[in-house]
Amino acid sequence: MPNWRDAIAGLCALLISSSCAFAQSDPLPSWNEGAVRNSITEFVARVTAKGPDYVPVPERIAVFDNDGTLWAEQPYYFQLAFAFDRIKALAPQHLEWKNKQPYKALLEGNVKAALATGHKGLLDVMAVTHSGMTTDVFNDLVGDWTKTAQHPRFKRPYIQLVYQPMIELLEYLRANDFKTFIVSGGGIEFMRVFADQIYGIPPEQVVGSAGEVKFRRAPDGTISLIKLPKVVFIDDGDGKPVGINRFIGRRPVFAFGNSDGDQAMLEYTAAGSGLRFQGLVHHTDAEREYAYDRHSQVGKLDKALDEARKRDWTVVDMKRDWKVIFPHERMAIQPAK
Amino acid sequence: MPNWRDAIAGLCALLISSSCAFAQSDPLPSWNEGAVRNSITEFVARVTAKGPDYVPVPERIAVFDNDGTLWAEQPYYFQLAFAFDRIKALAPQHLEWKNKQPYKALLEGNVKAALATGHKGLLDVMAVTHSGMTTDVFNDLVGDWTKTAQHPRFKRPYIQLVYQPMIELLEYLRANDFKTFIVSGGGIEFMRVFADQIYGIPPEQVVGSAGEVKFRRAPDGTISLIKLPKVVFIDDGDGKPVGINRFIGRRPVFAFGNSDGDQAMLEYTAAGSGLRFQGLVHHTDAEREYAYDRHSQVGKLDKALDEARKRDWTVVDMKRDWKVIFPHERMAIQPAK
Repeated sequence: MPNWRDAIAGLCALLISSSCAFAQSDPLPSWNEGAVRNSITEFVARVTAKGPDYVPVPERIAVFDNDGTLWAEQPYYFQLAFAFDRIKALAPQHLEWKNKQPYKALLEGNVKAALATGHKGLLDVMAVTHSGMTTDVFNDLVGDWTKTAQHPRFKRPYIQLVYQPMIELLEYLRANDFKTFIVSGGGIEFMRVFADQIYGIPPEQVVGSAGEVKFRRAPDGTISLIKLPKVVFIDDGDGKPVGINRFIGRRPVFAFGNSDGDQAMLEYTAAGSGLRFQGLVHHTDAEREYAYDRHSQVGKLDKALDEARKRDWTVVDMKRDWKVIFPHERMAIQPAK
Repeated sequence: MPNWRDAIAGLCALLISSSCAFAQSDPLPSWNEGAVRNSITEFVARVTAKGPDYVPVPERIAVFDNDGTLWAEQPYYFQLAFAFDRIKALAPQHLEWKNKQPYKALLEGNVKAALATGHKGLLDVMAVTHSGMTTDVFNDLVGDWTKTAQHPRFKRPYIQLVYQPMIELLEYLRANDFKTFIVSGGGIEFMRVFADQIYGIPPEQVVGSAGEVKFRRAPDGTISLIKLPKVVFIDDGDGKPVGINRFIGRRPVFAFGNSDGDQAMLEYTAAGSGLRFQGLVHHTDAEREYAYDRHSQVGKLDKALDEARKRDWTVVDMKRDWKVIFPHERMAIQPAK
């Protein structure tokens, strides 16, 4: 029901400000009542109350996939959109791209054709756009891009296409002394540029795929880190528990994903002793966002969905469980007269 | 001057309990008055006070080398002592070691001869003792070892050979809203077992050298992470800024080391904008600990010492600047009658 409380909650979400908490007694206002919401609040109640399921504060590690779990990932990963925009910006220095795929297709604005050229060409695009510069320059490029680039369907900056219910969930967990981490197949340095701003997750709590970086002492004494075109870690699939072990060094008690790439992370979480929470976002809402699962090229959810049903993991039905998808939907709600 | 306050401070240090803070008004009781101590307290005062040098809390990242900076590293890195003890424990399953170096020397108790066999043999020892098991089993082995193994000279568990003044410094920084990290050439999984207990640094704030780990789903459904005999990251020398970038994702404002292996980390820290702190521990006290620098096999401090003097970094003269070295020295102080 649209009212002032909702409008304020929406504003709070946009500001990602926990100091707005006083404005709402319900910490998850964008979640519909039901089994899914209850599975979250009951888990948190049980691990934070003294009793058999109590989890000490330092062990309250919560991990979240990013693409398709915290923000949208269709029609293709947003990091690819960044890379494609960089290709356009770099084109004047690469006249040879006019006749070379997938560059040619990208420069002609035909992303579909570019994607169809396959894995190798896209890896090449990622290497060209994510290396050969200092980490500082790369961070600035990503920062600038988040301010200007717009999503083709929603006509909004990509960083506004975060899931409002998940933002509330992150804040709810932190209010209950969880430490929230991103564990994503996306580039670790890409996400770190905006993760604090849009999720309240600081750089040191972002785990992702990583490229090689080299320390450089220039002859004039300038110190920098140079990004090289070599991938050193893929934080996806079976790599996610490996990334959690390497970067965090503790097994999470709470894990949320949305695709088969998250299954190992959820299994690893579930294999710990004591009460654990495993959740999947199931994209079921073609009208407000997208509907896809078993046959999607991006964010395929097939085996992990079966596993979730078999093991009684929480599966969010976006259409059923989420009152709103994006923060701007809350903002659009007018106060009641 | 020995008195009750010192005794309580010593007890506090052993408990690593910040709740004891009330017992002492001086946050650095084991540091002698002088330029070194002042360089620390003045830096902290300036970056925490509103003014031109103010550093916002999230950017108060402090990094510390471990071996030779937070705890002792002579006569050889403590992680090697763990490896050597494991070799002895595993010997019954490896009869071939009786005639193979460096195993033969180790089993005969001749560590010096084993070390003299060179790099390759030692890497082999590290691989044998640090892989071929689950991460959980490894953690238990390290945990058990810290409880029983004793340092050859000090006849105390290795984990008691932490530097009392550095423990106080870690707590002082945290009391001033710094986030403290270890950035060490040592094994990340080795250090994480005890870093929280002895330094108050949680696993997710420990950066170190890392071996490959593999996610395993056993046929019976058991989930585990297996340590493989392959090094994937060396967090030393020019690798330290790379490790800081990969694991933390922010440039520190405060860095402390003790050897040439820390120089790049200190340069990277210094190259940031605004006020920064770079410190080196110079081991000058053969009586209470060890005296070594330019020609030491372990913890060589040569170029970094020249660099520190040239750039006016803080250089701790252990003998001059530290009232006590180890926590047990404080405990030994008797209360005044």
